[in-house]
Amino acid sequence: MQTLRVALGERAYPIHIGSGLLNAAELFAPHLAQKRVAIVTNEIVAPLYLPRLRHTLRSAGIDTLEIILPDGEEHKNWSTLNEIFEALLAARAERKTTMIALGGGVVGDVTGFAAATYQRGVPYIQVPTTLLAQVDSSVGGKTAINHPRGKNMIGAFYQPRVVVSDMDTLKTLPARELKAGLAEVIKHGAIRDATFFDWLEHNVERLLAGDAEALGHAVLRSCEIKAAIVASDEREEGERALLNFGHTFGHAIETGLGYGTWLHGEAVAAGMALAADLSARLGMLARSDAGRVTSLLARAGLPVAVKGLATNRFRELMSVDKKANDGRLRFILLQGIGSASIRGDVPELSVNQTLEAAAGGA
Amino acid sequence: MQTLRVALGERAYPIHIGSGLLNAAELFAPHLAQKRVAIVTNEIVAPLYLPRLRHTLRSAGIDTLEIILPDGEEHKNWSTLNEIFEALLAARAERKTTMIALGGGVVGDVTGFAAATYQRGVPYIQVPTTLLAQVDSSVGGKTAINHPRGKNMIGAFYQPRVVVSDMDTLKTLPARELKAGLAEVIKHGAIRDATFFDWLEHNVERLLAGDAEALGHAVLRSCEIKAAIVASDEREEGERALLNFGHTFGHAIETGLGYGTWLHGEAVAAGMALAADLSARLGMLARSDAGRVTSLLARAGLPVAVKGLATNRFRELMSVDKKANDGRLRFILLQGIGSASIRGDVPELSVNQTLEAAAGGA
Repeated sequence: MQTLRVALGERAYPIHIGSGLLNAAELFAPHLAQKRVAIVTNEIVAPLYLPRLRHTLRSAGIDTLEIILPDGEEHKNWSTLNEIFEALLAARAERKTTMIALGGGVVGDVTGFAAATYQRGVPYIQVPTTLLAQVDSSVGGKTAINHPRGKNMIGAFYQPRVVVSDMDTLKTLPARELKAGLAEVIKHGAIRDATFFDWLEHNVERLLAGDAEALGHAVLRSCEIKAAIVASDEREEGERALLNFGHTFGHAIETGLGYGTWLHGEAVAAGMALAADLSARLGMLARSDAGRVTSLLARAGLPVAVKGLATNRFRELMSVDKKANDGRLRFILLQGIGSASIRGDVPELSVNQTLEAAAGGA
Repeated sequence: MQTLRVALGERAYPIHIGSGLLNAAELFAPHLAQKRVAIVTNEIVAPLYLPRLRHTLRSAGIDTLEIILPDGEEHKNWSTLNEIFEALLAARAERKTTMIALGGGVVGDVTGFAAATYQRGVPYIQVPTTLLAQVDSSVGGKTAINHPRGKNMIGAFYQPRVVVSDMDTLKTLPARELKAGLAEVIKHGAIRDATFFDWLEHNVERLLAGDAEALGHAVLRSCEIKAAIVASDEREEGERALLNFGHTFGHAIETGLGYGTWLHGEAVAAGMALAADLSARLGMLARSDAGRVTSLLARAGLPVAVKGLATNRFRELMSVDKKANDGRLRFILLQGIGSASIRGDVPELSVNQTLEAAAGGA
């Protein structure tokens, strides 16, 4: 097991990465204010991992309330959030009752937001069971639900007490979801670490094959990169925005095609390909480096273009994005592999060219 | 104008108390990240004070988006919250758009919670226009909506950038609401400041008559007391719970009789009378001091008993209260005028005696 600490002052927390961690009660117990937890999971993850986590906790004398949500991004909404509140209130969950999110990004985001707002905040623990959740939502405390008008529009910054990433859970992860997780792994290399990007180019097949050692390294390095950025800018007032590389385009794709059509990681992958293309069009990035980004994404089995979204509609969807500022769109662009920056002055013409090229698959 | 500073480190903020403050753009402008605000108010307050605030801000070159909610505690719910989100999204409000809550406690609580969660948090300013909001919700950052199963069950701790309490707004406040506000003023004296309690006993008629000088003193001293307690315990892990004096009983009364039947301050007044009675039954408080609390509340025109709520139902409602801990009810009790403490070991029999006495009006 390897342990990383996210340095956020009084809100600092550890991330444990390794095998067999769902059996390790000692990773959970020290963080509980009360011998009672509410485990929130979904109908796919519950049969796979809930019995093991329940057994681990109950053997340590901890009561478990269990809340099982429907699966899918389309359920990341107020109605699901309210199901959690109903269950917590019916069971008389208290301010010291710790919530545990057992599942992927949707479970983590909704559970985290429920924890942030139930009785004005209760402690919570993340147990991410997808690669995407392990490398992305487990670091940084972003919680949210979607709104019909935009993704993640309602939420809070709220940090977990501990993150337990059991690599064994990736063994049952569908190939499509593993690939979606690799999108964020590749993102971390692209924006911050050329050496890691290089390692990914050499190891993408091992990762796709589910090689535990390679996956462990990818999760650890991704969390380290993200943790360093988040520690310097918890509330996304500056540097943290770099983590949104691919997301201005990606969120528009998710909203425009309807939540649930594409996986978040797939939308971000296409978004990164578009952002790399835009970076090259603006002369910031060598066309060959944009090609490396697109090529690595494609080798990871991820989409690098998007059909079915008209340019006008695409632009409109982007303009409600949270990265907008005084009405101007901001883009995270690359100025080299491993180096990103925020640009608020991108000409509309260049954006349109990128959108049209992406729609044409060019 | 008098200014008080709530000391909360990086979340510290000033409270301005005085006359004519709605005309003072210089109290607002320095706190805006963008020359654009979203003013949230309700249908009662809007015709009285929205034109003045709008004029003040627009004269300073600040754009205003205006959101007018229905009036009443029964609208402090998800549906109203979502109306705010809809309006913000439709107007493309951004992360730097500051929200301004213009109104009483309901407007402040809902707007504060909307600000805490819209795009994971935008800045907000409180402009409380009721005595209750000026002495209570303007200090401490508690925001929330109600849930059918309990009051304030969903919310966040989220601090405003500045509070502007214009005493002129109390001139149009209905007498019943002025009295409800006095309940929280009396609470501050009862739990923390015998001298202030004494002053209230000598000045309650001036306050009821709307004497501006007396009201100004009551608001300032209340905010000082609350600010000192909140600064020492922002997230209500210890001392801050003392501010819930009267609230364990009071919330049960509000929920049991249906939101909107009693004003919050009225429920808290009856709750304080019950808590004082319970304190006396337990031998913590002289019966004569319990009598002083009840008598001052009654002189302020506030209820000190509650009919129509069976003892069993009352107990059940109290047990979902946030002050519960490991299934035990905690009560805030007095050990003298100006001195309160938290007790988790109150015998059920004594609680029942208090509830029965209150129901009988004894």
